[in-house]
Amino acid sequence: MEIEALKFFTACVTIAGIAIAIAAVGCAYGMGISLRSAVEGIARNPESSGKVTVTMLIGLALIESLCIYALVISLIIIYATPMAGTVTKMIGM
Amino acid sequence: MEIEALKFFTACVTIAGIAIAIAAVGCAYGMGISLRSAVEGIARNPESSGKVTVTMLIGLALIESLCIYALVISLIIIYATPMAGTVTKMIGM
Amino acid sequence: MEIEALKFFTACVTIAGIAIAIAAVGCAYGMGISLRSAVEGIARNPESSGKVTVTMLIGLALIESLCIYALVISLIIIYATPMAGTVTKMIGM
Amino acid sequence: MEIEALKFFTACVTIAGIAIAIAAVGCAYGMGISLRSAVEGIARNPESSGKVTVTMLIGLALIESLCIYALVISLIIIYATPMAGTVTKMIGM
Amino acid sequence: MEIEALKFFTACVTIAGIAIAIAAVGCAYGMGISLRSAVEGIARNPESSGKVTVTMLIGLALIESLCIYALVISLIIIYATPMAGTVTKMIGM
Amino acid sequence: MEIEALKFFTACVTIAGIAIAIAAVGCAYGMGISLRSAVEGIARNPESSGKVTVTMLIGLALIESLCIYALVISLIIIYATPMAGTVTKMIGM
Amino acid sequence: MEIEALKFFTACVTIAGIAIAIAAVGCAYGMGISLRSAVEGIARNPESSGKVTVTMLIGLALIESLCIYALVISLIIIYATPMAGTVTKMIGM
Amino acid sequence: MEIEALKFFTACVTIAGIAIAIAAVGCAYGMGISLRSAVEGIARNPESSGKVTVTMLIGLALIESLCIYALVISLIIIYATPMAGTVTKMIGM
Amino acid sequence: MEIEALKFFTACVTIAGIAIAIAAVGCAYGMGISLRSAVEGIARNPESSGKVTVTMLIGLALIESLCIYALVISLIIIYATPMAGTVTKMIGM
Amino acid sequence: MEIEALKFFTACVTIAGIAIAIAAVGCAYGMGISLRSAVEGIARNPESSGKVTVTMLIGLALIESLCIYALVISLIIIYATPMAGTVTKMIGM
Amino acid sequence: MEIEALKFFTACVTIAGIAIAIAAVGCAYGMGISLRSAVEGIARNPESSGKVTVTMLIGLALIESLCIYALVISLIIIYATPMAGTVTKMIGM
Amino acid sequence: MEIEALKFFTACVTIAGIAIAIAAVGCAYGMGISLRSAVEGIARNPESSGKVTVTMLIGLALIESLCIYALVISLIIIYATPMAGTVTKMIGM
Amino acid sequence: MEIEALKFFTACVTIAGIAIAIAAVGCAYGMGISLRSAVEGIARNPESSGKVTVTMLIGLALIESLCIYALVISLIIIYATPMAGTVTKMIGM
Amino acid sequence: MEIEALKFFTACVTIAGIAIAIAAVGCAYGMGISLRSAVEGIARNPESSGKVTVTMLIGLALIESLCIYALVISLIIIYATPMAGTVTKMIGM
Repeated sequence: MEIEALKFFTACVTIAGIAIAIAAVGCAYGMGISLRSAVEGIARNPESSGKVTVTMLIGLALIESLCIYALVISLIIIYATPMAGTVTKMIGM
Repeated sequence: MEIEALKFFTACVTIAGIAIAIAAVGCAYGMGISLRSAVEGIARNPESSGKVTVTMLIGLALIESLCIYALVISLIIIYATPMAGTVTKMIGM
Repeated sequence: MEIEALKFFTACVTIAGIAIAIAAVGCAYGMGISLRSAVEGIARNPESSGKVTVTMLIGLALIESLCIYALVISLIIIYATPMAGTVTKMIGM
Repeated sequence: MEIEALKFFTACVTIAGIAIAIAAVGCAYGMGISLRSAVEGIARNPESSGKVTVTMLIGLALIESLCIYALVISLIIIYATPMAGTVTKMIGM
Repeated sequence: MEIEALKFFTACVTIAGIAIAIAAVGCAYGMGISLRSAVEGIARNPESSGKVTVTMLIGLALIESLCIYALVISLIIIYATPMAGTVTKMIGM
Repeated sequence: MEIEALKFFTACVTIAGIAIAIAAVGCAYGMGISLRSAVEGIARNPESSGKVTVTMLIGLALIESLCIYALVISLIIIYATPMAGTVTKMIGM
Repeated sequence: MEIEALKFFTACVTIAGIAIAIAAVGCAYGMGISLRSAVEGIARNPESSGKVTVTMLIGLALIESLCIYALVISLIIIYATPMAGTVTKMIGM
Repeated sequence: MEIEALKFFTACVTIAGIAIAIAAVGCAYGMGISLRSAVEGIARNPESSGKVTVTMLIGLALIESLCIYALVISLIIIYATPMAGTVTKMIGM
Repeated sequence: MEIEALKFFTACVTIAGIAIAIAAVGCAYGMGISLRSAVEGIARNPESSGKVTVTMLIGLALIESLCIYALVISLIIIYATPMAGTVTKMIGM
Repeated sequence: MEIEALKFFTACVTIAGIAIAIAAVGCAYGMGISLRSAVEGIARNPESSGKVTVTMLIGLALIESLCIYALVISLIIIYATPMAGTVTKMIGM
Repeated sequence: MEIEALKFFTACVTIAGIAIAIAAVGCAYGMGISLRSAVEGIARNPESSGKVTVTMLIGLALIESLCIYALVISLIIIYATPMAGTVTKMIGM
Repeated sequence: MEIEALKFFTACVTIAGIAIAIAAVGCAYGMGISLRSAVEGIARNPESSGKVTVTMLIGLALIESLCIYALVISLIIIYATPMAGTVTKMIGM
Repeated sequence: MEIEALKFFTACVTIAGIAIAIAAVGCAYGMGISLRSAVEGIARNPESSGKVTVTMLIGLALIESLCIYALVISLIIIYATPMAGTVTKMIGM
Repeated sequence: MEIEALKFFTACVTIAGIAIAIAAVGCAYGMGISLRSAVEGIARNPESSGKVTVTMLIGLALIESLCIYALVISLIIIYATPMAGTVTKMIGM
């Protein structure tokens, strides 16, 4: 059973790493295309700089929140799933 | 049977991480392309800033809701599936 | 047989997570490209804001409905398939 | 044989979830690109709003029907395949 | 042999779900790009609305027919393949 | 040998479903892009409606024929391959 | 050996279905993009309708021929490979 | 050894079908994009019809030749590889 | 059990490398498209250089933060997961 | 050892078919995009027809040569590898 | 156990190579698209050369940093993971 | 050991075919896009024909050289690797 | 154990080849798109040739550095990993 | 152990072929897009021919160098890895 417990631990670290990596890719892409337009817009029309930056920051914050969700799930998986407690109890450690 | 129970726990943490990561990618992309247009629009026509931001926020909220669905399913899978109860009962813990 | 029952439970949580995640990606993308155009349209022609928002909301509601279908199937798989009843009966719990 | 029956049940819930998820992605994308054009069109030419909305709704209904087909097959697979009846009879439940 | 028969039933429900889901994706995409152009066309030139809608409906019907083919094959696979009859006879049910 | 015969039947239904689904996707896409242009063309130049519709229908019929080939092969695989006859003879049914 | 012969039959029906399906996708796409341009061209310049249709039909016939090759190979695989004869002789049927 | 010979026959029909299908896809795509331009060109400038058709046919013939190569290899694999002769001799048929 | 512990260590180094690599790809792409626009914007309108650079740096910092999350998770996986402590204790080292 | 020799023969026919099919796809695509431009160019500027056709044929010949390389390797693999001689000698045929 | 230790070493060199290769691809692409715009910008407006080069170098440095992260993780995996120390101690070398 | 030697021979022919096929695809694509531009350029500006053809041929020769590298490696693998000599010696042929 | 050591050696050469190949693809693409723009820029504005070439070379050098990182890791894996030393010592050579 | 040595030799020829093939694809693509622009540029502005060709050749040489790296690694893997020496010594040849 301890062998299976090790497999469970393995799955935890694997999925924590994968989840944050995939989410980071998606969010980086989403932020990149937003930022691209913001920068283009400011370059074309520098007077709009204030409004553009505010709108962009609201949007980037929402996208960042998506990555934070994945980060939170990753940290829950590493430090705080109820399963981990049950497993640790099962192997008596 | 406890070995199988550990496999069940493993599947739970795996799928919770994967689900939120995939959903985050999709939503980040959807938000990114919306935000891109909002920012471009404001840069071209700063007077439309108010209306654009309102429409954008309604849309982003709807997209955020999709990610929240996945987050909810992820948390249900980690903390509150009826199967988990049955499994815990089966292994007597 | 209880081992197989655990595999069945595993498949349930797995597919529930996958289904909502995939559907969320697709719907987020569909909403994103709609929202993009709505925002662009309003920025170009702020007077059309009312009509555009109404049409957009009708469409987004239809796309949201697709994700809701997947959410419903996910919840049915977690809480209410006839198979789950049969399985629970088979393992005597 | 009951083990195989459980595998059959597993396949049923798996495929029901996958089918609706894949179909939702496709239909959401199809709706999204239609909605995009409708919204762009109305923003450019608000007078065409009525005709555009009617044509769009006819088309979206046809696309929705494709997803409904998949939903129907999903529900048939969960609740009403003749195989499920045979299987339940075979395992005497 | 009954185990193999169950595998056959499993394959039937699996492929029925997959076939309709894949076909729905393709047809939804095909319809979406057609609908997009119809909507754009009507928005640009509302007078052409009648002719455009007629041509679009002829085309959408042809695309719908492709999905209907897959739906028919799906239903044949669930309810009416000669193999299913042979299999049911083989396991004596 | 009957087990292998069941595997043969399984392969038949699987491939029949896959073949029609894949062909439907391809043909739906081909039709969709044709229909898109037809609709755009008519919207721009309603007087060309007759000629455009005729040419489009010739082309769509050719594309439909491709899907019909796959449908025919699917139905041959379900109802009329010489192998199926040999297999049925081999298992004495 | 009869088991292997069944596997050979299985491969025959599988590949016949796959080959026609893949070829249909490719040819449908090739035809679709040709048809798209023909339709656009006629809509822009209805007087060129005759020449365009003739050239398009020559091209579509060549593309159709590619699919016919695959159909021929599919039918050869189902009805007329020398291997099938050898196999049938080997299992004495 | 006869079992292995059957596997060899299986590989032959499989690869013959796959090769022609893949080549057909590629060539159909190549022809499609050529045909698209030819048709667009003639529609724009009907006087160039003769020269365009001649050049297009030279090119399409070269592309067709690529598919013929694959067809030839497919038929060689079905009817005329030296390995097939060796295999038939090995199993004494 | 020590063998399983080695597998756990293997998974740790594997996932640490994969996570940072995938995140780096995504963030590099996101930064690249932002930088592209910033550079284009400055080249077109050198006077906007200050504002563009500031906005770009805010955005790039947010994208960099996503990669930092993955780096942090990678380092946690290599140096500081609670599972690693449990595993080291289990193998008595 | 004869079984392994059959596997070697199987690999030979498999790879010969795959190699020519993949190369045909690539070359057909390369030729297609070249031909597209040639045809577009002639349609726009029929006087350039001679020079364009000559340059195009030089290029297509070079691309054809790439496919010929693969054809040669395919035929070498079927008829003339030194390994095949060694294998035939090993199984005493 | 030494066999497992060798597998651990194998995984280390594998992942070190993969991580740097994937990161290099992503960063090279990100740099490439930035560089493209810088070069285009300078070619269009040579007077902006100084400002463009400075902004480009800041951005390229940030992208380079992402690749350096992966390089650092690669080198840590080859030379300095705590797991490697534990493994070396376990096999007594 | 002779069985393993046959596997080695199998790998040799497999990789020789794959390598030339993949390289041919890449080079054909590279040549195709170059040729496309050359042909477009000559059609637009026939006077530049000489210089364009020279530059194109230099470039195509460099791309051809890449495919030649792969061809050389393929032929080395079939006819002249030191491993093949060692293997032939090992099986005493 | 020597068998495992051979597997370790196998993994080393495999990953060295893969790493440099993947990195080369990415860097070649990155360089290609940069070079494209440089060449286009010089063709449009030959006077900017000096500044463009300098900026391009700085960028290409940075991209080349990414490939050099992978080359260095490849050579380290072939000639100088501490694991290789440990392995050689373990098998006593 | 000789069997494992043969597997090592197999891996060597496999990876040598794959590495050069993948690198050739990438470099051919990179060169193709550069060459495309060079050719377009010369066709538009024949006077820039000298400068464009020089810049293009510098860039193509850098891309060629990437492929040479892979070729060198391929030849090292076939003829000169230290592992190959160790392996040859291990099997006493």
